[in-house]
Amino acid sequence: MGERSARAGDQMALRRHNLSMVLRHLRDHGPRSRARLAAETGLNKATVSSLVAELTTRGLVRSGAVERGAIGRPGQIVELAGTAACAVGAEVNVDHVAVSVVDVRGEPVVERGVPLDASAVPAGEVLDHLTRELAGVLDEITAAGASCVGVTVGVAGLVDSRTGAVESAPNLGWSDVPVAQLLAERLGRPSYPVRVDNEASLAAIAEARSAGPDTPVTDLVVVVGGVGVGGGIVSHGQLLRGHQGFAGEIGHIRVDPNGRQCGCGRIGCWETVVGLRALLAAAADPDDQVHDPRLGIDERLAELDRRARLGDARTISALHEVGRGLGAGAAVLVDVLNPAAIVLGGYYATVAPWMLPAMEAELAAGAIAPRAGGCRVQVSRLGLGAVTRGAALVSLDAVFDDPTRIATAVPTRTVEPTGGVS
Amino acid sequence: MGERSARAGDQMALRRHNLSMVLRHLRDHGPRSRARLAAETGLNKATVSSLVAELTTRGLVRSGAVERGAIGRPGQIVELAGTAACAVGAEVNVDHVAVSVVDVRGEPVVERGVPLDASAVPAGEVLDHLTRELAGVLDEITAAGASCVGVTVGVAGLVDSRTGAVESAPNLGWSDVPVAQLLAERLGRPSYPVRVDNEASLAAIAEARSAGPDTPVTDLVVVVGGVGVGGGIVSHGQLLRGHQGFAGEIGHIRVDPNGRQCGCGRIGCWETVVGLRALLAAAADPDDQVHDPRLGIDERLAELDRRARLGDARTISALHEVGRGLGAGAAVLVDVLNPAAIVLGGYYATVAPWMLPAMEAELAAGAIAPRAGGCRVQVSRLGLGAVTRGAALVSLDAVFDDPTRIATAVPTRTVEPTGGVS
Repeated sequence: MGERSARAGDQMALRRHNLSMVLRHLRDHGPRSRARLAAETGLNKATVSSLVAELTTRGLVRSGAVERGAIGRPGQIVELAGTAACAVGAEVNVDHVAVSVVDVRGEPVVERGVPLDASAVPAGEVLDHLTRELAGVLDEITAAGASCVGVTVGVAGLVDSRTGAVESAPNLGWSDVPVAQLLAERLGRPSYPVRVDNEASLAAIAEARSAGPDTPVTDLVVVVGGVGVGGGIVSHGQLLRGHQGFAGEIGHIRVDPNGRQCGCGRIGCWETVVGLRALLAAAADPDDQVHDPRLGIDERLAELDRRARLGDARTISALHEVGRGLGAGAAVLVDVLNPAAIVLGGYYATVAPWMLPAMEAELAAGAIAPRAGGCRVQVSRLGLGAVTRGAALVSLDAVFDDPTRIATAVPTRTVEPTGGVS
Repeated sequence: MGERSARAGDQMALRRHNLSMVLRHLRDHGPRSRARLAAETGLNKATVSSLVAELTTRGLVRSGAVERGAIGRPGQIVELAGTAACAVGAEVNVDHVAVSVVDVRGEPVVERGVPLDASAVPAGEVLDHLTRELAGVLDEITAAGASCVGVTVGVAGLVDSRTGAVESAPNLGWSDVPVAQLLAERLGRPSYPVRVDNEASLAAIAEARSAGPDTPVTDLVVVVGGVGVGGGIVSHGQLLRGHQGFAGEIGHIRVDPNGRQCGCGRIGCWETVVGLRALLAAAADPDDQVHDPRLGIDERLAELDRRARLGDARTISALHEVGRGLGAGAAVLVDVLNPAAIVLGGYYATVAPWMLPAMEAELAAGAIAPRAGGCRVQVSRLGLGAVTRGAALVSLDAVFDDPTRIATAVPTRTVEPTGGVS
C-alpha cells in the first residue's frame, strides 16, 4: 500500500471512529444539539455537522425539536433514528423458540415466540423452526427498507461464544452442536454476523442495560428460570464470563447431596428444586393443563397465578417451596459474589410475588453477611423477553462499532411493533 | 492559594507522578538502564536521570551492573533497593497471629508467628498479642534505619476494608470490632496507615502477584484453609470484592442441608466438612497431640503428614475425605465462576498431596462444564504465609503510589531475614 492510500486508510478509520463516537454519545446521553455534541465530544462544530449529516443519510440519526434553554443560538436537536437498521436476537430454550428485533435506539419493534418441545426433536429440526421464525422477521425488516446488522442466539447451555458452538445443553439433549455455523447455512450465509451465546449471559446484558434508576448495574446476578436455571453475573460493571465462558452455570450447583436426580445426571442440582418442572410437579397432577407443552409458558404461569389468587393451597405451597429453594441457592451466590442485587428473570418474573417472602427470609438466614450483604432481590421487568432482548442488543453493537456498515440510502417505511412473545 | 503556589503544587504533583511511574516500571519490568527507562516511559533522559537521583537519595533504588547488549552507549542498570522502606503485613486467625515484613522489592525480610487460641480470649487481648509482635518487628525496622510505610492486618471474617472494622468473625467470636482503630491506638497513632482486610482477599493478592509462569492470574480462586475456610476471588485480573466487600465467603456455602452445625450457627457449611477441625477430628481422637492448641498448625500438620507417609489408614482416610469435600465445594465455585485455577492455600498447602486425587475426581464429576471448565487445582507456594505476604504487599503500595513518603536520608544498615512463620 502506497503512502497516499495508507493515509486515506487512516482518514477513513478516523472518520469511522468519529461517527461511532457521535452515535454512542447520542445513545448514552440522549438527544442534543450539534453545538452540545461538539462541546461534549471535543470535536469541532464543522466536523460534528459533517458527521451528523453522514449519519442522517445513513438513516441512523434524525433532526428533532429545537433545543430549549441552551447557551447561545438555539440549535435543532439530533437524536437516534429507528429506521435504517435493525438487530435481531433469538432464543432456543427447552420449551420454546423466540425472536426479538430492536431498532437503532434499542427499542423492540418485533417480539414473538412459539412453544416447541425442543428436547423431543433433533437439534437440526429445532434450528429449522428457529430459521422459519427468523426468516419471517428478516423479511419484515427488508420490506421496511431496513438492514439487518446481525443475529445473536441465546441457548440454555454451555456455549463457546467465540465459535458459536454449543458444547453441552443437557436440558436440550445437545452436545457439540455448531449452532452459529448451522444457522448461518440455513440463512443463506448472510453478510451480517450470526453469533451464539449463553442465554443467561444475554439476559444479564439486557437487565444491566435496561436497568431503572433503582437497579444497581455494577454487581448483579440475573437468575433466569425455565426448565433449566441459568445465571448471568455482572461484576465491576462487566459480564463475568470466566476462563472458558462457562461462568454462571448456577442451575447445577449441588444444593442437596440427597436430593433429586437432575437432567444432567447429577444429584441435587439447584434446578431440580427451583426449575419450572419442579414447580409444575409440585403444583399440579401430571394430567393437569399446566403440564401441556402445547401451551406457552406464560399461559401456564398465568393459570398458576390465577389459582394462587383464588387461594388454592397446593399452588401457593408449591410457589412458596420454590421461593425457599431460591433463597437457599441465592445465599450461595451472595456468599461467593456479594452482589448488590439478584434479579429474578425468566419464569420467576411472572410469579415472583408468591415466592419473594419465603425467598428473602431464606436468603437472609442462609447468607453469612448480615442482611445478605446488602443484596436486594428484584424482579426483572423484562421477564421471559430478556434473553432475546439482550441478544438483539449484542447484535446492535455492530452499528455503534462501525456506523458505515449501514448504506447511505434513506429508507421510507418503518417496522411497526407486532405480536408478543409467548 | 495564589497562582504561583498553585503552579508549584501542580509541579510537585507531576514530579510525584513521575517518581511513581519510574518506581513502578522498575518493579513491574525489572532492572534497566536510564536510557531504557526513558525510551519505555516516554520521559526525556534528563528527567529520568533527575528522578533516579531523587529515588536514590530516598533509598528506593540503587545503581547496579552495566547493561549488556544495549543499543548505544552502555548504561549502568538501575534497580529497586531494599533498604529504605519496609511494609508490614499481619494476620489474626483462630489459632495464631503472624507478622511479615517485606522490603521495597516485595521480598520478605521478616516472617514470624505465634500460636494463640484467639477465640478463647477477648478481642482486645488478641490485639495486645498482635501489638507485641508488631512492636518487635517495627523496632527492627527502625534499628535498621528503614521507615515503615504501613501496616495491614488480615482477619478471618467479614471486614469493612474502608473503615478497618471487623463486622463479624464467627470463628473468633468477634462482632463489630473496630480493629484498625484499636490497633492504631495501641501502636501510638503512627503516621503510616493501619488497614484491615479480609485474610483470604489478601492471600489472593499475594498468590496473584507471586504467581509462577504456569499460574493464570486473571481468573482464579484462592481457598484458604484454616479452622475457617476463606476465599479470595480474582476475576479479569482484579480482586472481586462485591457490593460491600464480602465476596468470597465460601466457607459458609451450605453443601449439605443435613450436615453438621457450623461455628456460625448454620447447618452444613463447607468449613464443617473441609475446615481444619473437621480434618483433625476425623484423623485423631480428642486427646491426640494434633489437637493441642499450644502447637503451631504447621507442627500438627507435619505430624499428620508423617502418619500418612507411614501408611496410617485413619489419617489417610481423613485426608481423602477432606479432599472429596474440597472437590464438591470447588465444583460450586467452578459452576459459578469458571476460574482458570483454584489455588489451595492455608493449611491445604501442607497436606495437599494426600487430598488432590480425591478432590480432582470429585470436582470433575461435580462441575457441569466438561473437564471442570479447564480449571486446574494448584497448591499455593506461599501456604500459610500468603495472608501476611499479601497484607505486606498492600501496605507497600503506598510507596509506589507516592515515593516522596520516604525521607531523603540514606540508611546504612539492612534488615536481615529472621525466623519463620509458625
